[in-house]
Amino acid sequence: MGKRKQLKLGAIIHGVGGNISGWRHPDVPVDASVSFDFYKRQAQTAERGKFDLAFIADGLYINEKSIPHFLNRFEPLTILSALAAVTSRIGLVGTLSTSYSEPFNVARQFASLDHISGGRGGWNLVTSPLEGSASNFSRKNHPSHGERYEIAEEYLDVVRGLWDSWEDDAFVRDKESGVFFDPEKLHRLNHEGKHFSVAGPLNIARSKQGQPVVFQAGSSEAGKQLAAKAADAVFTGQETIEEAKAFYRDVKERAAKEGRSGDDIVILPGIAPIIGKTEEEAERKYQELASLVSIENALNFLGRFFEHHDFGQYDLDAPFPELGDLGKNSFRSGTDKIKSRAKELGLTLRQVALETATPRSAFIGTPEQIADTIQQWYDAEASDGFIVHTHIPNDLNDFVDYVIPILQERGIYRTEYESDTLRGNLGLPFPLNRNAAKPLQRETESAI
Amino acid sequence: MGKRKQLKLGAIIHGVGGNISGWRHPDVPVDASVSFDFYKRQAQTAERGKFDLAFIADGLYINEKSIPHFLNRFEPLTILSALAAVTSRIGLVGTLSTSYSEPFNVARQFASLDHISGGRGGWNLVTSPLEGSASNFSRKNHPSHGERYEIAEEYLDVVRGLWDSWEDDAFVRDKESGVFFDPEKLHRLNHEGKHFSVAGPLNIARSKQGQPVVFQAGSSEAGKQLAAKAADAVFTGQETIEEAKAFYRDVKERAAKEGRSGDDIVILPGIAPIIGKTEEEAERKYQELASLVSIENALNFLGRFFEHHDFGQYDLDAPFPELGDLGKNSFRSGTDKIKSRAKELGLTLRQVALETATPRSAFIGTPEQIADTIQQWYDAEASDGFIVHTHIPNDLNDFVDYVIPILQERGIYRTEYESDTLRGNLGLPFPLNRNAAKPLQRETESAI
Ligand SMILES: Cc1cc2nc3c(=O)[nH]c(=O)nc-3n(C[C@H](O)[C@H](O)[C@H](O)COP(=O)(O)O)c2cc1C
Ligand SMILES: Cc1cc2nc3c(=O)[nH]c(=O)nc-3n(C[C@H](O)[C@H](O)[C@H](O)COP(=O)(O)O)c2cc1C
Repeated sequence: MGKRKQLKLGAIIHGVGGNISGWRHPDVPVDASVSFDFYKRQAQTAERGKFDLAFIADGLYINEKSIPHFLNRFEPLTILSALAAVTSRIGLVGTLSTSYSEPFNVARQFASLDHISGGRGGWNLVTSPLEGSASNFSRKNHPSHGERYEIAEEYLDVVRGLWDSWEDDAFVRDKESGVFFDPEKLHRLNHEGKHFSVAGPLNIARSKQGQPVVFQAGSSEAGKQLAAKAADAVFTGQETIEEAKAFYRDVKERAAKEGRSGDDIVILPGIAPIIGKTEEEAERKYQELASLVSIENALNFLGRFFEHHDFGQYDLDAPFPELGDLGKNSFRSGTDKIKSRAKELGLTLRQVALETATPRSAFIGTPEQIADTIQQWYDAEASDGFIVHTHIPNDLNDFVDYVIPILQERGIYRTEYESDTLRGNLGLPFPLNRNAAKPLQRETESAI
Repeated sequence: MGKRKQLKLGAIIHGVGGNISGWRHPDVPVDASVSFDFYKRQAQTAERGKFDLAFIADGLYINEKSIPHFLNRFEPLTILSALAAVTSRIGLVGTLSTSYSEPFNVARQFASLDHISGGRGGWNLVTSPLEGSASNFSRKNHPSHGERYEIAEEYLDVVRGLWDSWEDDAFVRDKESGVFFDPEKLHRLNHEGKHFSVAGPLNIARSKQGQPVVFQAGSSEAGKQLAAKAADAVFTGQETIEEAKAFYRDVKERAAKEGRSGDDIVILPGIAPIIGKTEEEAERKYQELASLVSIENALNFLGRFFEHHDFGQYDLDAPFPELGDLGKNSFRSGTDKIKSRAKELGLTLRQVALETATPRSAFIGTPEQIADTIQQWYDAEASDGFIVHTHIPNDLNDFVDYVIPILQERGIYRTEYESDTLRGNLGLPFPLNRNAAKPLQRETESAI
């Protein structure tokens, strides 16, 4: 391993926000989740900050208790394609579930995004946590956690295979001779597996970055294993630097066991910075946000992680209830953490609900303090960078204007994009085509 | 029925083209099918010509003999979303098959396109003609022609139901009270049908135009019936004005039997104009295009309509072979026409193949002649307008610069967009929400 890559950053754009009551803040436009102008401004701000990527989360099931952003929001592939037209360097990564879609359609759509954006596309592979999803897809049952990951692994293999249908120099396009492509460089996949049979070929070529960048966002054992084996990047939730270090080491070691270099997989925990000119201002901003959340809303938000469990039935000020296996089939890594933390610290239901709705993280403070914490995590190998959520739209501006310059001064963050592809900026190797007899020699667009 | 609507126009954008050898023409950029710049320029040219819509065709199966454009092209929803960001008034209509996708995903993606574009989205519903498609979707068999339409009808009903999950004034978004939506205006679909069970609700609201505009592009009996019952517009292939008149009358009468006004369904045959300053120049341009097509390519192109049938086995100069039912399960309306025309006119295989590859239509000539033919069809109620294919990119410019002004002078085509929604420009009624107890009063954005 040579010199370590610089810090990588993603910006989640999520309309009225991931906080259940954040939309009530005076600075949040109430229609942000379906406002293209809003998404465009946020993506352009992130690009001004030289962010590696803009990130769109997603979900396939809502009910009356879902958080406002989930009720009425853009679908990731469509909004990312639109953003491709109004940005030029930032990567565009969207969430899509392998449990309720067809690999042929999904391979095509991400490949198409990748072409439209000139090699900036990325897929955040998820397995859909919520059982209710099945009812929107003519299925009797939501597959179990283990089965979802089994499907996901085969699915990703099919998609990567389809992406490699055409060798990089397959399209000859010689007007004189009338030869459009070299038939030797066209490959049928002919996949026959347990869950899928897909012949191919795909009707779109590889892009400038070879294949879209694949993120994996599950953090359970199965999630980590899939990431280590087959993903280019991991989006994860880690609350403390110690936890994050253990997770980071674990995934990189698993990758090594799979014969990969630790450098080939980028680990990005999510953070939700709250920035103030002074510590007091940051604290005031945190309190303002927290005060918007009613206890009912906090219970709904918590309930969603546990299959929309009704927490209204318990005493708010008694210890967090015993839930058995509830949550194991949905957001397993998240619900395991909530349960064990509540037990360890002896928290009440009210405490858990309010903390989950508006977590008090280590990333609240002045730009200098936030930059310090970021650097601390990066230096300690707790992460390769972060996916940044901002609660209030203007916080992304503040992050770009005040935190980024400090990271740049310290030499841990880029001052210019190194590449025009997402893969290039993330410092990931160019993926050779699995079907190429003699792989094309290509400069690896590496970002040291 | 009051004064008749003006002529409606769509522009197909299709990269290196629908002509099997058109890519060899010196003016065609060889990478056009995956060039965002190309699509952007074409869409903006069409918008300059006040076209109602840009149209993207699609397909789910290729093989070595497919036409070049099909081998490596953008996926419709992604490219249309990108075009939404660089246009402001033109409609954006994309093809998507009901045979190999999930209504929940598709309803979302079109709704999202519709929001991104501010009410300019449209869906061209197709059933996938090619049997090979099944092999890309883990299916043993391609559903039969009849079953495909049965699925399509239920599918469209599900999608329209999902689109109406939220009443138009459901989102209250009152920061003070913390009420984001009115639960009485949220509706679950709870569809349980033969092919689909979909509970909903959809996680996106209706757009400014209520619902995306739905095109239907099959022209068999089943296709016409589905269109008459449930579509807003029809894209069809009609070679002569007589055929077109019969088709037009048939669909409008079927619509009337379904209790709809003939005005509520817009019928648009495809045309491929070839424009010259003089008749001779137009003829020269036609010959130039025709000369690019080798007989092998013409046979391949013809074969595709008949399940990629190998026409190489027959005598080129003998009468067109007897094919039995071949083609009935794929492009039925098209293959029926090819067979009956060949028989009627006593054509050889060579003649049929070359004519199918480069049809000589009534829309070849000077701008004045083309405008005359357009007006003749429109006046005769052979169509409400056209979907315009251009073989060579610059022909779209010529159409806009030379044909459009004549149509405008004659008062049959707009000089300015009447509306900022596709539905408004097509003069289609605003669809009331099926779940609304008291439908919102809305100005119908009609375009007379
Ligand atoms: C940081 C993080 C982000 C996630 N984002 C999404 C998302 O946008 N959409 C989704 O359906 N699931 C999302 N998930 C859920 C996972 O993909 C997965 O379905 C669930 O967490 C169960 O897997 P796990 O137990 O391995 O974490 C996310 C999970 C994590 C940890
Ligand atoms: C004018 C026209 C355009 C069509 N465009 C497409 C298309 O873009 N993609 C597709 O898969 N099928 C397309 N089709 C095929 C039809 O949707 C349908 O699958 C096939 O024609 C069989 O239906 P029919 O016999 O009713 O015409 C088109 C058909 C017509 C007539």
